[in-house]
Amino acid sequence: MGQRLIVVGGSAAGMSAAAKARRTNENLEIVVYEKSRFVSYGSCGFPYFLKGEIPRIEDLIVRTPQEFFKQGIHAKIRHQVLFIDPQERTMQVRNLETGEEFTEHWDKLILTTGGIAARPPIRGLALAGIFTLRTPEDALAVHAWLQQADVKWGVIVGGGYIGLEMAEALAARGLHVTLVEMLPQVMPGMDPEMAAHVLEELRRNQVDVRLEHPVEAFEGDGRVRAVMAGGERFPADVVILSVGVKPEVALARAAGIALGPTGAVAVDDHQRTNLPEVWAAGDVAEALHLVTGKPAYIPLGTTANKQGRVAGANAAGGDAIFPGVVGTAVVKVFDLEVAHTGLSERSARAEGYDVETVTISAPARAHYMPYHPPIHLKLVFERGSQRLLGAQMVGQEGVAKRIDVLAAALSARWTTYDLAGLDLSYAPPFAPVWDPILVAANVANR
Amino acid sequence: MGQRLIVVGGSAAGMSAAAKARRTNENLEIVVYEKSRFVSYGSCGFPYFLKGEIPRIEDLIVRTPQEFFKQGIHAKIRHQVLFIDPQERTMQVRNLETGEEFTEHWDKLILTTGGIAARPPIRGLALAGIFTLRTPEDALAVHAWLQQADVKWGVIVGGGYIGLEMAEALAARGLHVTLVEMLPQVMPGMDPEMAAHVLEELRRNQVDVRLEHPVEAFEGDGRVRAVMAGGERFPADVVILSVGVKPEVALARAAGIALGPTGAVAVDDHQRTNLPEVWAAGDVAEALHLVTGKPAYIPLGTTANKQGRVAGANAAGGDAIFPGVVGTAVVKVFDLEVAHTGLSERSARAEGYDVETVTISAPARAHYMPYHPPIHLKLVFERGSQRLLGAQMVGQEGVAKRIDVLAAALSARWTTYDLAGLDLSYAPPFAPVWDPILVAANVANR
Repeated sequence: MGQRLIVVGGSAAGMSAAAKARRTNENLEIVVYEKSRFVSYGSCGFPYFLKGEIPRIEDLIVRTPQEFFKQGIHAKIRHQVLFIDPQERTMQVRNLETGEEFTEHWDKLILTTGGIAARPPIRGLALAGIFTLRTPEDALAVHAWLQQADVKWGVIVGGGYIGLEMAEALAARGLHVTLVEMLPQVMPGMDPEMAAHVLEELRRNQVDVRLEHPVEAFEGDGRVRAVMAGGERFPADVVILSVGVKPEVALARAAGIALGPTGAVAVDDHQRTNLPEVWAAGDVAEALHLVTGKPAYIPLGTTANKQGRVAGANAAGGDAIFPGVVGTAVVKVFDLEVAHTGLSERSARAEGYDVETVTISAPARAHYMPYHPPIHLKLVFERGSQRLLGAQMVGQEGVAKRIDVLAAALSARWTTYDLAGLDLSYAPPFAPVWDPILVAANVANR
Repeated sequence: MGQRLIVVGGSAAGMSAAAKARRTNENLEIVVYEKSRFVSYGSCGFPYFLKGEIPRIEDLIVRTPQEFFKQGIHAKIRHQVLFIDPQERTMQVRNLETGEEFTEHWDKLILTTGGIAARPPIRGLALAGIFTLRTPEDALAVHAWLQQADVKWGVIVGGGYIGLEMAEALAARGLHVTLVEMLPQVMPGMDPEMAAHVLEELRRNQVDVRLEHPVEAFEGDGRVRAVMAGGERFPADVVILSVGVKPEVALARAAGIALGPTGAVAVDDHQRTNLPEVWAAGDVAEALHLVTGKPAYIPLGTTANKQGRVAGANAAGGDAIFPGVVGTAVVKVFDLEVAHTGLSERSARAEGYDVETVTISAPARAHYMPYHPPIHLKLVFERGSQRLLGAQMVGQEGVAKRIDVLAAALSARWTTYDLAGLDLSYAPPFAPVWDPILVAANVANR
């Protein structure tokens, strides 16, 4: 009998780890414990499920426990891990269906307990109709609630990715949508003047955006009826609370797994924790930020999948490395593509860099093509060295993958001189002869 | 009075050079001689003008001679440079309007005479209705010809970019289009199995593609009526001959400007030729290929603009560098985006590399989104080192700018391991959580 690998948590990172471990070592016994009824789901799809573009929540599942079983992976849903004993290499598990508890031995452990939606202690938070959106159960609960005939007013709390995607989803369902945000801008990862394009798009689509409106209370009669924010009252039949994600570190902390400066589990480039034979990956873990060289907590599905794969390979006896992240993200907001990578001007200054920036607008296609919507691009770079520190991009097309060139540039630690020399693709339907990236780099190099 | 810079040739490279020289040195006298009636045009737009998407040829002009004059650049159209004397630093110029010839002195010279369309000596080549497509005059001539009521049959000779774009343009005008190609594939810069996707798209759009059909003759009665190719006869009311571009080196050669191994003008990373105070840029010149480390002749608008800018800066006393090319190109073929960068498998083998390849198909969006067309991606890399040598990509969306990540990777001399670690953007409408580039890199790394 081979050794036993237990993976705690069955979403992207966990199942990615299990599958890679299986491919790396066929003698390993692999067990995954997952609290919810689902494994291997794409939570990034929830807003599109709720918008109505994806008919069934099951469509978001990559593979079922039955399919994993055929690969020799025991994915046990509705099982909660209560306690991990790193000395004895055991864990206490509860079967949530039967209530039964049992002790399991492990030789290798991968912790992928993920993140939890922040739920600030606001009065009325327990009212029915107030939702966060992390798990398939969350998505199904929102879906069921929206089926009610009398849901006309939706309030989104928080202007990050999920808030913006849910604003679009609820608007597409015909709800009157209010978005309340504590900060003076949406998209907190971007600088204000770039986020302003997003704000404009939201308002153009009749989303009532209220900046600098911290939520004071939820009001209702068992179910939510209104949100009090910034001293104003907004009617609400449904509330989506999307004010951030925190790492689910309770198990880790109790087991003596060290957390890093961000509060998430500290890992090295092999996804190792401080404990022998224990790895961590995904939204529970930190990642090395390649621009700052420091650990960062940027919970995203792409990173979860990659880290899971690396943890799985290493737990199975391989030697894989996760190089780190540069913080690349993209979100669709109605007809806009909104993307950023690396540091914003604000975060670069906070990190102590001597910052310069360039912001340009250039068409997404050759200027003579009948349709050539603008791309707004901001480069953040270090004065003197001209080293690229980050980029932000907004436009109706050509943004989502163009940002990846700048993500690659950050990985390569390139300067704006390097950027200006890139041999980027050109044809009139896809770019101007001077790609917006080259235009921005040329301006930066003046 | 400052020194005099003369730029020979007023298309992309030439006007880019003149404009950059002007910004670099305000004391320089700058004169551009251009044979045709147009300067500063985007010849890549001709197929879209002929398709009818762009109403007027003038829309393709970036700036007119009048506008350049306001910047202090004398752009003289309909002036042909007949001879350059590098010893005396003079040139002989003919005013094509008046027939007048005169001698001009120069202190600095930038040669941007561009490329000429290949016209192989085929019987019947002089018949009316047979066109190449390089200059605005060419485009206007084709346009005028197509206005004739009886133009029903179009034959494209050559399956490169221009041939493919013109097939689409003529089909959009309702012509019956035949494309005859000497080679066993279209898109000669790609490998056959990737080019097969393009072939399929052409045929799906009723373009009658005939591979391995070298043209034997054009037939007609003063105007073209048919093309004989591969032993068959294809009716033709108009023929677009797009079988390649050659550098226009007659002036250079007569002046003693050295050509490189490709037959184009040899230049260093400052766009200097072998002669003092003489630079060259654009389709007349070579460029360093960053993958092979050898000079290459890949005449494209992006390179022309960049090289022109560098030549202009240096001729004006600056110190600019053109790092080289990786051979990135994209073309729209009906509903397909077709792109490649670096070396194809065939060209990599020809260069002597020990080549491995990986070809994958992955969706352009998350698999659960209602529309998620496939992207076909081929990576070409070196066995052992896993160094990326090239990439080819075909798909209905997400190709044009995704190829640029691979172009950047070639500039960085990355391996497939480096690729697999990239922090690429992800949101369900724009990519799967494992971007096709990461999928391909992971397969390459197995």
